[in-house]
Amino acid sequence: MFSAATYQNRRAVLQSNVRNGILLFLGNIENPVNFEHNPYYFRQDSTYLYYFGIQEPRIAAIMDIDENKTLVFGDELSMDEIVWMGRQETLKEKSLKSGVSETLPYASLSQYIIKALASGRKVHYLPPYQSFNKILLADLLGIKITELQPSEAMIKAVVNQRSIKEPQEIVQIEQAVNVSNEMHLLAMRLAKPGMKEYEIANAIQYFAANKECQMSYPPIVTINGGILHNHYRLNTLQEGDLFLNDSGAETSMGYAGDLTRTFPAGKRFTTKQKEMYEVVLNAFNNAQSLLKPGIRFKDIHLKAARHLVEGLIDLGLMKGNPEDAVKNHAHTLFFQCGLGHMMGLDVHDMEDLGEQYIGYTEEDPKDTQTFGLKSLRLGKELESGFVLTVEPGIYIIPDLIDMWQAENKNSDFINYDKVNEYRNFGGIRVEDDFLITDNGYRLLGNGLIKTAEEIENYRAEHLA
Amino acid sequence: MFSAATYQNRRAVLQSNVRNGILLFLGNIENPVNFEHNPYYFRQDSTYLYYFGIQEPRIAAIMDIDENKTLVFGDELSMDEIVWMGRQETLKEKSLKSGVSETLPYASLSQYIIKALASGRKVHYLPPYQSFNKILLADLLGIKITELQPSEAMIKAVVNQRSIKEPQEIVQIEQAVNVSNEMHLLAMRLAKPGMKEYEIANAIQYFAANKECQMSYPPIVTINGGILHNHYRLNTLQEGDLFLNDSGAETSMGYAGDLTRTFPAGKRFTTKQKEMYEVVLNAFNNAQSLLKPGIRFKDIHLKAARHLVEGLIDLGLMKGNPEDAVKNHAHTLFFQCGLGHMMGLDVHDMEDLGEQYIGYTEEDPKDTQTFGLKSLRLGKELESGFVLTVEPGIYIIPDLIDMWQAENKNSDFINYDKVNEYRNFGGIRVEDDFLITDNGYRLLGNGLIKTAEEIENYRAEHLA
Repeated sequence: MFSAATYQNRRAVLQSNVRNGILLFLGNIENPVNFEHNPYYFRQDSTYLYYFGIQEPRIAAIMDIDENKTLVFGDELSMDEIVWMGRQETLKEKSLKSGVSETLPYASLSQYIIKALASGRKVHYLPPYQSFNKILLADLLGIKITELQPSEAMIKAVVNQRSIKEPQEIVQIEQAVNVSNEMHLLAMRLAKPGMKEYEIANAIQYFAANKECQMSYPPIVTINGGILHNHYRLNTLQEGDLFLNDSGAETSMGYAGDLTRTFPAGKRFTTKQKEMYEVVLNAFNNAQSLLKPGIRFKDIHLKAARHLVEGLIDLGLMKGNPEDAVKNHAHTLFFQCGLGHMMGLDVHDMEDLGEQYIGYTEEDPKDTQTFGLKSLRLGKELESGFVLTVEPGIYIIPDLIDMWQAENKNSDFINYDKVNEYRNFGGIRVEDDFLITDNGYRLLGNGLIKTAEEIENYRAEHLA
Repeated sequence: MFSAATYQNRRAVLQSNVRNGILLFLGNIENPVNFEHNPYYFRQDSTYLYYFGIQEPRIAAIMDIDENKTLVFGDELSMDEIVWMGRQETLKEKSLKSGVSETLPYASLSQYIIKALASGRKVHYLPPYQSFNKILLADLLGIKITELQPSEAMIKAVVNQRSIKEPQEIVQIEQAVNVSNEMHLLAMRLAKPGMKEYEIANAIQYFAANKECQMSYPPIVTINGGILHNHYRLNTLQEGDLFLNDSGAETSMGYAGDLTRTFPAGKRFTTKQKEMYEVVLNAFNNAQSLLKPGIRFKDIHLKAARHLVEGLIDLGLMKGNPEDAVKNHAHTLFFQCGLGHMMGLDVHDMEDLGEQYIGYTEEDPKDTQTFGLKSLRLGKELESGFVLTVEPGIYIIPDLIDMWQAENKNSDFINYDKVNEYRNFGGIRVEDDFLITDNGYRLLGNGLIKTAEEIENYRAEHLA
């Protein structure tokens, strides 16, 4: 946990921004795997972590703005539970570390809410994402789950606050990134033809676990990098394959890292692979250089798209005017997703609160229709204190090629004959994590090798 | 998956046992960790696995007994999803492997149920344990979650069927046990003073992952074996500590292993530890020898308790007549839990369906009040084909000792002075997995070293 003052200050800021009513915070539970008492590992809700820092299932909290008091709700262990689970720090003690002196039993939460509602007060809450909390919220408020109406005022206030990372949060994120760096180097030392994808995924997870880290998301560790959300890990690496590793660690305080590297399953990139890698890396470097407060991330995204198009024209896969190609979204045959996203206590930071609030503004809302842009999680102007990923890529998706070609889509910009020579190419992504500073940006963590040459040299050094 | 005929046969048996109405099966979902699109690893519901074998989130199935047809409900990937997730085996193809030729979109499930309810037919369903399925069931049935009434007829039929393991299930369980055996040997080779508990937990999990196994439950890997449900893993092993490892693997088809070994953190047991170990092992061996069809497991539990008491009398921690001690539940100061439980597709097999149905009978129901017996998950007569654990233990719990001593509880049987000399002793458990056969029992898996001498020798051989 951070200091009690940290949580008190954060809550004071939130209180001053929402101004009235009751702010209700629900912690997460231990979710059952195949029966109630066989749970997945516990992960506290990120907003609860941010304002209270208490890592404990089945707790809640109320900030009563009208009455200027804060309470943590939860049950202390019974004697029966102490026999089973041992003596532990009490919830009272944990709450004090969060700067909250008043704790009440979990069951009192309902009374508190009923009383507040009865006196016509506003109860603010965030959108629940775990089903347990959907049921709980509906019960507490005496409405149906379909009638739940999360508080826009609370969402906006939380998003504004959590978007700007504190120095101590940056320290945490850099810890996560540095563990992630090591995970990636380990993968580069291990991976070779004949291995299964899952062996590498398991090894990096083991490494992180020994650093007391969870995975911040299910790793994508695959020879089919063209499949964007690929969690199948039973393939065997073969000479000539490209290996894509998108994985990151999460510190025990909940902060995420998120990195991607793509490298040859054998010792060297083929010429085709290296050419394509340079295209992606060039787009990455250009995007990185543009990071600074005041620039729209959507514009950086579109510039990265343009750099990808220019590279693909050089390689003969695309043609025509690059600017027009991007305007017509022709790049989305190769770059179907977004250039990056906010990162912090969640790998897609605050995604549970709604992408529109995190990544866009009311004046410049998200494009939820256009293929490509609808997958761009962050579009708005950057601010000093934002932490985000930059992750351009080129993904060859045979089904998508066939679909477009059948419609002759964007044929002014795409050389389908040439593209079809790359059908089994796979995918390349390069991803790092950045802090936006007053003057520009700072790469988070100690840095991880990235050029084709660095990667080939590292692998030549370490592969038997 | 097993053969289509396997699932067809299982469903035919179930159908013949329930006789009428509609049997509704809900699969599990990918449960969110900290936002909807960041899920825990997927684990299919065990009963769904048993009758359909399809490992896919957000699917359901109906066995319409009245109309003698079976349908799988779920959505095929859209083109958009194929772009993101790659081409995969279709639900239709998976269903065919389960012997089901008819698949319908997930949304049609609701219509099917509404129509069935409208014509006054009975819709059978099992108790939901994941909140998502509670919400879904209530929606499908048009009632409140608190009004859900799982079908006793369906529960009983499922329990009867799943309790008797098929030969091919035994093969799966033995695979799980054999991976678990290797996990335990690895822990015995690795553990030594100076290590953190989590390092050993991580190593065995890594080993299992490379065998394509999950953990069948969160491992208990601790120097505080006296804490029964101990998931704190930050302690450092020290010379003189007892190290308790309760962990098991789950095969990719979902079958569990569940083993416990307790061994010295250093090379040798102390005299006190070895004496106590012998008491537990003796109770274990006696319990094992009693396993056979027709004997009540509760009686084996009580005999194990008696063997523990006799040993504790020899060591001076208890006194008086052993039979009377057990009758007065005096052993529960040391052995607070049950001797074992059913095991199969769940480590506590079918626990989601209700302990009373799994482990007891209507004529001889579970004692839910008495300390000790209320934690015995299995009490009923054993049958050929049951798979279960045997896991006696001695747990020294200072808080419990203080509580009892303050009440002078069972002071005819307990030498509190002597017991207090053991306050920091920790706990010992020995656990193996057995199949009940027509004539007795069979230890599952290849066997794992168990005597104090075997363990000391193995560690002497492998520790540097």
